[in-house]
Amino acid sequence: MQGTNRAATRGLPELIISVDDHIIEPPDVWEARLPAGLRERGPRVVETDRGQAWEIDGERRRIVGIAASANRNGEDRFSMKGVRYSEIMPGAYDAKARLADMDEDGVAVQILFDNLPGFAGATFLELAERDPELALACVRAYNDWLAADWCATAPTRLIPQCILPLWDLSLSADEVSRAAELGHRGVLLPGVPAHLDLPAFSDAAWHGVFRSAEDAGIPIVMHIGGTASRKSQVTDLRSEPDPVALETAKAMTPLVNCEALAGLMFAGVPELFPNLKMVSAEAGIGWWPYLSERLDEIYTKHRLWEKTPLTAPPSEYLARQVYASFILDDAGMASRELIGRDRIMWSSDYPHADSTWPNSRQLLTEHYGQLPEEDLTAILGGNALAVYGLTVPAEARD
Amino acid sequence: MQGTNRAATRGLPELIISVDDHIIEPPDVWEARLPAGLRERGPRVVETDRGQAWEIDGERRRIVGIAASANRNGEDRFSMKGVRYSEIMPGAYDAKARLADMDEDGVAVQILFDNLPGFAGATFLELAERDPELALACVRAYNDWLAADWCATAPTRLIPQCILPLWDLSLSADEVSRAAELGHRGVLLPGVPAHLDLPAFSDAAWHGVFRSAEDAGIPIVMHIGGTASRKSQVTDLRSEPDPVALETAKAMTPLVNCEALAGLMFAGVPELFPNLKMVSAEAGIGWWPYLSERLDEIYTKHRLWEKTPLTAPPSEYLARQVYASFILDDAGMASRELIGRDRIMWSSDYPHADSTWPNSRQLLTEHYGQLPEEDLTAILGGNALAVYGLTVPAEARD
Repeated sequence: MQGTNRAATRGLPELIISVDDHIIEPPDVWEARLPAGLRERGPRVVETDRGQAWEIDGERRRIVGIAASANRNGEDRFSMKGVRYSEIMPGAYDAKARLADMDEDGVAVQILFDNLPGFAGATFLELAERDPELALACVRAYNDWLAADWCATAPTRLIPQCILPLWDLSLSADEVSRAAELGHRGVLLPGVPAHLDLPAFSDAAWHGVFRSAEDAGIPIVMHIGGTASRKSQVTDLRSEPDPVALETAKAMTPLVNCEALAGLMFAGVPELFPNLKMVSAEAGIGWWPYLSERLDEIYTKHRLWEKTPLTAPPSEYLARQVYASFILDDAGMASRELIGRDRIMWSSDYPHADSTWPNSRQLLTEHYGQLPEEDLTAILGGNALAVYGLTVPAEARD
Repeated sequence: MQGTNRAATRGLPELIISVDDHIIEPPDVWEARLPAGLRERGPRVVETDRGQAWEIDGERRRIVGIAASANRNGEDRFSMKGVRYSEIMPGAYDAKARLADMDEDGVAVQILFDNLPGFAGATFLELAERDPELALACVRAYNDWLAADWCATAPTRLIPQCILPLWDLSLSADEVSRAAELGHRGVLLPGVPAHLDLPAFSDAAWHGVFRSAEDAGIPIVMHIGGTASRKSQVTDLRSEPDPVALETAKAMTPLVNCEALAGLMFAGVPELFPNLKMVSAEAGIGWWPYLSERLDEIYTKHRLWEKTPLTAPPSEYLARQVYASFILDDAGMASRELIGRDRIMWSSDYPHADSTWPNSRQLLTEHYGQLPEEDLTAILGGNALAVYGLTVPAEARD
């Protein structure tokens, strides 16, 4: 791990863990793993007149360049154009190339999110209406592949998180336990289940999922974008969205995680499952002090007549069981004392357009290099070790 | 103005202006002002088996106690039950009683919002589909009554803001000018017009409204809840909402104003109308530093290819033309240097359940009494004088 930016980054800890990075699944994930009778209708990459696309049971989704453009610049980096696998950085889909890119960036560990499954498996919800057997096989094939194949390349450095068969929360609870045994260290959930027409977190149907995660000692993890409406999960090949609406929507995306946390708190989830850890991914942290105070205000004013199942103010549960990750968030880091140093984790968002790669250490030094060493040690790595129960990779040991 | 809490509030300025308070319209506002041919179908108060209700062209909306319960405690204060006028505090609808309540609270000036019209006139949108003549008469009757009647009781202390015939943005532009001449000092707008099926702020159809407000030197004002979906404007007499969903929705309501501000910024409104002031009401201020940084990030990353009409980062427009009010927001006040002292205004939210009345000075002293005098002078009154172009009431002059 001899990153090119190392010399310029004195003051940062040796161990840097990024808790939010993305796989672009290689084309053969499902074709190589689904049973013969399902293989033809499972996800596979096909040629179109506008680049390659994933086809799932006859429906197509383009492969958007922005999901793997950390190595591009300017207009090209943030383009919503479709691309071909041959055009994107190999580290997006190849584990060995990924490790080399992490070394270049000086990042020891990445916690991994999916791409095609739509965070938490939302992509397979519609498929499950037509063919639940195929949909379940797709979910399991992904979880198998990520833990036993891709991350096995470097098990202390590439950390898998599982997706779920969300259309059946009992099956989902079983899948959490199965995935944990395979080595998965996080359970991806939609932040606002109603956006996917799923029961709210206050519904006891979720309890099995929460219990399985709590028993396995792994967090539930809500990534921004995982709560988009079901309709918008389908990327229209010809969409030309209004730029003002698109920029506004992008700016607001992280705040959906505030709703996710509010929903979990008022549903009493942290009270019913006091050892369940909950992670907000890529939403930043600057909203935390405001949210914490606002939730307490609502709790204090309305609990007399609304009778939600909480027995303490939401801020107490946030401070005990909730964590949030940021990429760069100067306002949030200025408020880190109000948030709590042990609540905050960092991510590079590799290989997305928003990523700090390959300049993570340089950017972190510029933005936060003057902060106390104990803050940086916790926020840039130590907290993630505890939340996900990780082993320090040999390469990052002093 | 000899408030009972005055003795305990040394350190606060003499002049305190609350920029977000509410009228509960007295029963005769429309019946006394609509032309004879429209009077029967305009808003009037009727008896129901669950209290009194407003009836508008055959449709009923209950009068919810929470809108005028600042004088109640506990469960009774936050109840969504319907009530009768005889049960609510007279200051809610009677100007002289209001002034006495303001004196008790030590608040010199209130900037006023409507109740029945649904912030900005949303209630009359549906009516306009059936009968635009009646709907326009209802909007004008409210604006006439508020400025020429209710606020005329004490024109330097009770400050009117106008509602608009939102179904016709050309008529709305004219109404802004007409209302400004009547003495209105703010223009109420829905924060996210799409929630009312109206054009986005990026649509040139809004330009007349913005220009009229800019020419009159009065701000456009977005209150939380003014962006609720059209459907939810109708208060179902029998609704029994899920408490978890309700608490989550309440906690999230203020963040809709982040979307409102993002939409205005990316639409280029502050660039096209550089003297137009914009106010976020009752959404608090703690999110400001996070939002400002987030909007700049989106602007910096995406402007190359999305080509929105801004020529400077959104934070520059926020710091020049945007203001936000809070009731109590300790996290926000801790970040006041990042926000900018001249951006922040305070409100008591009288007579809503959330109001600090009659203990505003005591609560402000407890929460913020130790802050620098120049901060409190600006935030609790000075900024409002400038934003709304007010005259200091004789009672509040040293």
